[in-house]
Amino acid sequence: MEPRIKTAFALGLVEGILLILFGVCVTFDRPMQPRHVTAAQEESNEATFNRFYPMFEDVHVMVYVGFGYLMTFLRRFGYSAVGNTLLQSAIVLQWAVIMRGIWRVHGAKIPLDMESLLGAEFSAVTFLISFGALLGKTSLIQNAMIGIMETAIGAGNEYLGVVVLQAVDPGGSIFLHTFGAYFGLAVAFVTHKKDHVGNRNEGSSYISDVFSMIGTLFLWLYWPSFNAATVRGAERHRAVINTYLALTASCLTAFAASSCLDGRGRLDMVHIQNSTLAGGVAIGSIASILAEPHSAIIVGSLAGTISVLGYKFISPFLARRWSVHDTCGVHNLHGMPGVLAGISSIILAATTSHQSHGDSLFSVYPARASVLFNVTDGHGFNVTYGLNRSAGEQAAFQLWALLATLSIAISGGVATGLLIRLECFEPVDVQDAFDDGVAWNVAGPEMPTFVEVKPRVSSPPRRPQIRFKNRVMSILRETRVQAP
Amino acid sequence: MEPRIKTAFALGLVEGILLILFGVCVTFDRPMQPRHVTAAQEESNEATFNRFYPMFEDVHVMVYVGFGYLMTFLRRFGYSAVGNTLLQSAIVLQWAVIMRGIWRVHGAKIPLDMESLLGAEFSAVTFLISFGALLGKTSLIQNAMIGIMETAIGAGNEYLGVVVLQAVDPGGSIFLHTFGAYFGLAVAFVTHKKDHVGNRNEGSSYISDVFSMIGTLFLWLYWPSFNAATVRGAERHRAVINTYLALTASCLTAFAASSCLDGRGRLDMVHIQNSTLAGGVAIGSIASILAEPHSAIIVGSLAGTISVLGYKFISPFLARRWSVHDTCGVHNLHGMPGVLAGISSIILAATTSHQSHGDSLFSVYPARASVLFNVTDGHGFNVTYGLNRSAGEQAAFQLWALLATLSIAISGGVATGLLIRLECFEPVDVQDAFDDGVAWNVAGPEMPTFVEVKPRVSSPPRRPQIRFKNRVMSILRETRVQAP
Amino acid sequence: MEPRIKTAFALGLVEGILLILFGVCVTFDRPMQPRHVTAAQEESNEATFNRFYPMFEDVHVMVYVGFGYLMTFLRRFGYSAVGNTLLQSAIVLQWAVIMRGIWRVHGAKIPLDMESLLGAEFSAVTFLISFGALLGKTSLIQNAMIGIMETAIGAGNEYLGVVVLQAVDPGGSIFLHTFGAYFGLAVAFVTHKKDHVGNRNEGSSYISDVFSMIGTLFLWLYWPSFNAATVRGAERHRAVINTYLALTASCLTAFAASSCLDGRGRLDMVHIQNSTLAGGVAIGSIASILAEPHSAIIVGSLAGTISVLGYKFISPFLARRWSVHDTCGVHNLHGMPGVLAGISSIILAATTSHQSHGDSLFSVYPARASVLFNVTDGHGFNVTYGLNRSAGEQAAFQLWALLATLSIAISGGVATGLLIRLECFEPVDVQDAFDDGVAWNVAGPEMPTFVEVKPRVSSPPRRPQIRFKNRVMSILRETRVQAP
Repeated sequence: MEPRIKTAFALGLVEGILLILFGVCVTFDRPMQPRHVTAAQEESNEATFNRFYPMFEDVHVMVYVGFGYLMTFLRRFGYSAVGNTLLQSAIVLQWAVIMRGIWRVHGAKIPLDMESLLGAEFSAVTFLISFGALLGKTSLIQNAMIGIMETAIGAGNEYLGVVVLQAVDPGGSIFLHTFGAYFGLAVAFVTHKKDHVGNRNEGSSYISDVFSMIGTLFLWLYWPSFNAATVRGAERHRAVINTYLALTASCLTAFAASSCLDGRGRLDMVHIQNSTLAGGVAIGSIASILAEPHSAIIVGSLAGTISVLGYKFISPFLARRWSVHDTCGVHNLHGMPGVLAGISSIILAATTSHQSHGDSLFSVYPARASVLFNVTDGHGFNVTYGLNRSAGEQAAFQLWALLATLSIAISGGVATGLLIRLECFEPVDVQDAFDDGVAWNVAGPEMPTFVEVKPRVSSPPRRPQIRFKNRVMSILRETRVQAP
Repeated sequence: MEPRIKTAFALGLVEGILLILFGVCVTFDRPMQPRHVTAAQEESNEATFNRFYPMFEDVHVMVYVGFGYLMTFLRRFGYSAVGNTLLQSAIVLQWAVIMRGIWRVHGAKIPLDMESLLGAEFSAVTFLISFGALLGKTSLIQNAMIGIMETAIGAGNEYLGVVVLQAVDPGGSIFLHTFGAYFGLAVAFVTHKKDHVGNRNEGSSYISDVFSMIGTLFLWLYWPSFNAATVRGAERHRAVINTYLALTASCLTAFAASSCLDGRGRLDMVHIQNSTLAGGVAIGSIASILAEPHSAIIVGSLAGTISVLGYKFISPFLARRWSVHDTCGVHNLHGMPGVLAGISSIILAATTSHQSHGDSLFSVYPARASVLFNVTDGHGFNVTYGLNRSAGEQAAFQLWALLATLSIAISGGVATGLLIRLECFEPVDVQDAFDDGVAWNVAGPEMPTFVEVKPRVSSPPRRPQIRFKNRVMSILRETRVQAP
Repeated sequence: MEPRIKTAFALGLVEGILLILFGVCVTFDRPMQPRHVTAAQEESNEATFNRFYPMFEDVHVMVYVGFGYLMTFLRRFGYSAVGNTLLQSAIVLQWAVIMRGIWRVHGAKIPLDMESLLGAEFSAVTFLISFGALLGKTSLIQNAMIGIMETAIGAGNEYLGVVVLQAVDPGGSIFLHTFGAYFGLAVAFVTHKKDHVGNRNEGSSYISDVFSMIGTLFLWLYWPSFNAATVRGAERHRAVINTYLALTASCLTAFAASSCLDGRGRLDMVHIQNSTLAGGVAIGSIASILAEPHSAIIVGSLAGTISVLGYKFISPFLARRWSVHDTCGVHNLHGMPGVLAGISSIILAATTSHQSHGDSLFSVYPARASVLFNVTDGHGFNVTYGLNRSAGEQAAFQLWALLATLSIAISGGVATGLLIRLECFEPVDVQDAFDDGVAWNVAGPEMPTFVEVKPRVSSPPRRPQIRFKNRVMSILRETRVQAP
C-alpha cells in the first residue's frame, strides 16, 4: 500500500471503529440525557460540572501545551513533537472513554460525563510519558498502536490497583507516571537500534529550548490541579498546597544539582526543563493525605535531586549498557520519581493512624474503614470499601500495587514493542530518526535555522557495549517477526 | 497628514469617542452599582460572576493567544499578527459593549456585567476571523475601520437571528464563525490585488510554524468553554463533551486527509494548524442539544475532512479564479464548517421532538414552547419566547438565520471593503504586503532568520485568470471612490 | 569555593533553612488539618478553596509565563529570563509564606491555606518587577539574596500599609507594583556600571520579541484576576470589568503614542510589549471601588500614554544621567503607573461618600465605618476596622501609604544593593552582562541565531555624563564593602 493511503487508511479505520463503539456502547450519563433532565438533576449536573471542569481544563492544558511543547526541544523535531501530541492524544482520549468506561458500566451503556473526560486525560498523560521515551524513533502508525495498547493495558492496571487492591494514589503517580515511564522504556528497549545513541539530529537549539520551557512552565503551574482533581474538600485543598510546595522544593534542588554537576557551575537546560517538575510526580500519591506541609518539601527536594542525577548518570548508562535509549529522559522525570511516590505512599500508609487523621482516615484510606460503603471514586470507578484493614495491611497493598504496576507496565511494553516492530506499522529507519522531514512536508534545506547546541544524551566516545542486549535479543529472536 | 500623526490621531479619536459613549451610555448593571449592593444582591452577583468568569477567561485566552499566535505563521509578519490582534481586539471589545448593549437597554443606560464582556469577546472572535482572511494586506487604520463596521453589523445580525428569528446557535457557529468568514472574504474580494497571490513574503518558516501551533493548541483546548459559555446545567455539560469529541474526531480526519493528499504521505503544517479545529466550529450550533455523543464524532469527522479539502483545492481556486485571496484560509476553518454547523442545526431542529428531549425541548428551543415567557439569554439579549413552533418551523427559522447571516455578512463585507479602499484609510501597497517592516520599527536586513518553507496558498504557475473579477469590478467601478 | 559548589551550596542552604522553618513554624490552617476535618469544615474548606483557587491559578500563570516570557526579549538571555523566573519565584514563594505569615499568626504556628499561596504569588510579582530592572546584570546568587531581602521588607511594608495605616489597595498597585519598581531601581542604581548602558548584547531579535509577546498576552489576559483576587461579590465583579476596560484603553493609547513618537509612524515592539499593560497597574488600587466604568477608561488611557513617554524619554535619561539602568523599563510599566494608581486612590478616597456608595462604603473603606469589627482581609492579614474616618482622612492615609512605600522601597533597595555588591554574592562582570553563556551550558558559537534588532535602551552617541552618580557614589563609598 502507498504511504499516503496507508496513514490515511489507518487513521480512518481507527476513527471509524471509535465511531461505531461510541454509537453502540456510549451515552451521556443519565442526569445529562435531555429526556431525564429535571430541576433537581440540573443542580447535581452543575455541581458535578463545577467540581471537575476547571481542573479538567488545567489538566487539558498540561497534556497538550505542557507535554507537547516540552518535547519541542529537539531542534529538527518540533512539528512532530506538537503534532503527534495533538493527534495521538485525540486518539487516546476517545479510546480511553471506552477502555476506562467498561470498568464502570452500570446499565446497558458506558456513561459519559466530565469524570470520563478527566479519566481520558489521565490516559493521555500515561501515553505521552511513554511517547517521551520513544520521541523521534517511532512512526505515526506505531504511535497510534502504542496508544491503543497502552490505554487498554493501563486502564486494566488502574482498575486492579484502585478497585481490586484498593491502593490509594490520588495524583496517579503509580498508575500513570510509573506505569507510563516503564511501559515506554520497555518499548524503547525492544525497538532499540544502536545508532539512536549519539545521533547527530538528537540535540536541541537555543530557540527550541526556549520553546520547550513553555511546556515546562505550564506543567509546573497546573500540576496542583492534576494532583487534586480526583479528590475534594480538605483533601483537595491539601493536595494543591503540598504539590505546590513539592514543586518549589524540587525546583531549588534541581538547580542546585545541575550547577553542582557541571565543571564550571553552569546550569544545564535539560535538567531545568525536566527535573524541576519531579516534585509534582513524587508527591502525587500522598499530596492529599500528608498532614504536615514540610513533608512535601522533603519529598520534593529528594525528587529534584534524584532526577538530575538520573539525567547525568543513569540515562547514558541505560542507553549504552542496557540498550534503553530514552529520548526525553522520562525515567528521570516520571520513572524514578514515580517509584519514589510509591515508596512514600507505602511509608505514609504504614504510619497514618486514627490518632493522626481522625475520622478522615476512612476518607483517605477507605479500605481501613470497618463499615462497607459504596462510592464512585474520582477515577470514575465504582468501589466497595470498608475492609477493616490495619495500617500495615494498607501499606502492603500499596506495595503490591506498585509491584503490579511495574510488572504489567514492563511486560505490556515488551509485548507492544514486539508488535510495533512488524513491518505493517512502518518502523522508522534509523537515519530518519529525530527528523521532521520524514513525516512532514518541510522544505528540507532551510530547516536548520535551528542551530545545534548539544546532544540530549551525551554520546559515548567509544562504541557502546551491548552484551546485555545481545543476550536478551537472542532470547527474543524466536518471537521476533522482523529483524531491525 | 504625516503618518505618525495620522495613526495616533485615528486611535486617539476612537478612544475619545469610546470614552464619551461610555460616559454617556454605559453603567454597571444595577446589582453591581455600589449604591445598590445588598446582601441578597451579593449572592446574585457572585452567582452571575461564577457562572461566566471562568469560561470568559478561557475564551479571552482563545481570542488573544489562540487567534494571535495562530496567525504568526507568516515568517515576516509575526509582530503584526500578535500586535494587531491585541490592538484591534481592544478596540472591538469596547465598541462591542456599546453595539451589543443597545439591543438590551432596559433603563436609561446600557448595563455592564460579565455577560457584556463575554459578548464582547464573541465580537472580537468575529472580527479576528475576518482579519485572518485579510492578514498582511490591510493597514492598522483599515483594520480598525473593519472592526468598527463589522462589530456594528454583526451585533445587528445576531439580534436578528437570536431575538427576531429565534434561531438557536449557542456556540455561535452561524452568527460568529460563518458571519466572520464571509464578511472577511467579501472584504478580501473587494480589496483584492492580483499580486497578493503567490507573494514571495507569504510563506511560513520552521520556527514561525512552531509559534503558530501555540495558537492552535489554546484554541483547541478552550473550545469546549467557547461552545458552552452561553448555556448552563445539562446543556453546558453536553456542550463541553460534544465539542471535545468533535474536536478529537476532526483532529484524526484532518491528519488522515492531509497525509492522503500528499504524494509521499507527508503531513502539511497548514492543515494541522487549522483543520484540526474545524470540529469545534461545526459542532457549535448543536453541541448543547445533541442527545447522543456519537453524533458529535460524525460532525467532527466531516468537518476535519472538508476543511483539509478546502485548503488543498478550494482556496487556490478562489484566489485564482474568484479574486478572493484568503491568507489564513478562514473559508476552510470557519466558513465551510460554519455552514456545516448551520445545516446540522437545521437537521437537528427538524428531528428533535418532545419524545427525544422531554421538557428540556423547551429549554433548548424556547420558541417551541406554547407558553410565553421571558429570559435573558446567554448572548445578553432579552427574549420573549413561546411561539408554539413545530419542529419543521424551527428548522425553517434556523435556515432563514443562516441565509440572513450569509447575505448580511457578504453585503456588509462588500460595503466595508469599498469604504476602506478610500485613500484616507491608508491602503497597503502590494509590495509591502505580508511584511512587518512597514508598520513596525524592525531593523530590516536581520529579520530573515525566519527561513522560507513554502507559500501558504500555492501560487499558480501561470498568471491567474481574472475574468470574473473584471466583470464584477466593472459593476463596482461606479461606486468606487479610489481605484486600487 | 569553586563556583559549582558555591551555587549548589547556596541553594541547598536556602532550601534547608526553609525546610526547618516550615517544620517548626508552619502548618495547615485548622479546618484543613486531617484531625479536625468535619462535614461543616468541609463546606467552609470548599468555599475558601473555590473563592481563591481559579484566580490563584490565573495569577500563577501571570507570574511564570507572563513575567518569565516577557523577559525573554533579550536575544542572548532567554534561558536566564525563564530559568531565573522559575528558580527565584520558587524561593520567594516558600519564603513569603513565612514572611507574610508571621503577621497573621493566631496560635502557635503560621496557618497555611490558599490565601497564603495567593499572598506568596504577590511577593513573587514584587520580586519579578525588581528583577526586571536588573535583568542581565545580576548573578543567580545575587538574585536569591534580593528575593529574600525584598520579600521580607515588602511584607513588612504591606502590613504597615494595609493594617496599620488601613490604606486600601486591592490590586496591590502601591504595595506590589510601586514597591517592586522602586526597590529594583534602587538596587540598579547602587550596582550600576556605566558599560551596562549601550551594551552590545542588550537588544532583542525578531524571534525573541515574538517570544516576549507570549508573556505580554498572558499578563494582559489574566490581569483582571490579579486585581480582583482579594475582593469578592460586587467588588470582584467591578474589579474585573474596570481592569478589563483600563487595559483595553491603555492598549489603544500605547499604540497611538508609540506610532506618534516614531519619525515614520511605525510601532516599537518595546512599547507594545509593556505599555499596553500599564492600565492594569494604574487601575489596581481602585478597580473594585470605581462606580462608573468610564473612569477606568480615563485611567487606562493616561497610563498607556505615560508609559510610552517613559520608555522614549525618561529611561534613557535615567540611564545616562542618574546611573539607573532599567533593563525592562519597569519604571515605565510598574513605577509611574503605580504612582498614578496611588494618586488615583487618594483622589477616589477623597471623593467617595455614603451618598455615592451607600453602605458598601464601609466594605470598600472599612476604616470609615464607625463600628469596630474584625475581618481577615484578602491579603491574609487580620485587621480590626472601624475608625470613623472622614473621606479626607482616608485620602490622607492613602497618601501616607504611598509615601511610606516609596521610602521603604528605595531605602530597602539601596541597602540590598549594597549587600549584594559583596564579593560572596558573585557579581557579574560587565562583559558577561545580558549573556546566557555565563550561567548556562550553552554551546556558545551557535547561539547567535538570535539576530540583533536594536538595543532596548537606545544607547547615547556620546559617553554618558555621570556627574550625579559620581556625587552620590562618593557618599556611598564609605559604606561600600567592595568596589565594583
